[in-house]
Amino acid sequence: MEQSELTERELAAWRASYQMLELLRTRIEQQLLADSGLSNADYTVLALLSEAPNGRMRLFELGRAAGWEKSRLHHQLTRMSTRGLVTRERCGSRGREAVITPKGLTALKDAVPGHAREVRRLFIDRLTPEELDRFGDIAAKLLDSLRADRPTS
Amino acid sequence: MEQSELTERELAAWRASYQMLELLRTRIEQQLLADSGLSNADYTVLALLSEAPNGRMRLFELGRAAGWEKSRLHHQLTRMSTRGLVTRERCGSRGREAVITPKGLTALKDAVPGHAREVRRLFIDRLTPEELDRFGDIAAKLLDSLRADRPTS
Repeated sequence: MEQSELTERELAAWRASYQMLELLRTRIEQQLLADSGLSNADYTVLALLSEAPNGRMRLFELGRAAGWEKSRLHHQLTRMSTRGLVTRERCGSRGREAVITPKGLTALKDAVPGHAREVRRLFIDRLTPEELDRFGDIAAKLLDSLRADRPTS
Repeated sequence: MEQSELTERELAAWRASYQMLELLRTRIEQQLLADSGLSNADYTVLALLSEAPNGRMRLFELGRAAGWEKSRLHHQLTRMSTRGLVTRERCGSRGREAVITPKGLTALKDAVPGHAREVRRLFIDRLTPEELDRFGDIAAKLLDSLRADRPTS
């Protein structure tokens, strides 16, 4: 009775992709939380801000880069502000920005080596270099295509 | 300063994969919630149970299939029980099972066509058949590898 509109092959490809990512997210987050007290979402925000000029990004850009809706971004940043990892600041007529704090930067620096090892152990080392390139290329194509849908408000 | 242990190519492949799936989850869930009031997690549980013999699965198997830890599965099933979509039942000495209710089955049936259309629109139709097969194959290989790590308690 399941998804009659998709062929068996399509459904299998979708489910493997979705379930693999769910499991990978869970496993990656277990290490992050245990070793650094950061969730996947915390890590994503800190990593994106740390690489942005002056450690700051407009909320719209940050949400877009993370793949989140406005309300999810709002709740995430509220939790992180409470913990002193980020602040939100007005920036003239351009709206609001999220800014990484020194505490946030330290938390990220402490988390990076363990997280990188876990990404290698759970994802990169389980694929051949050719598979990794192919998977990454297809993911990047899909990401570009999905981002192109969104209104550039 | 980010993930010095990973090469640029590895980091790019990882980030594209992670961010693409984050965005895809967000977009897929927007349609599901708007049209059916179900989250991605609700849909996953209902779909897995609906395909299991007699609409029931041991909690351990369900968590494994969904890629969730015990505590996440527990909270998810508690929320769904409150809404009458599933029940949890003891099953002799083998522990506990989750069971889909008639209301859960109806909710799933109502949600399937719209969800399948959205999976097609956002994922399947944006790839060539060869890309879809390749992506699905690599995801399935990773999924098998990750699942093989887990203790079979």
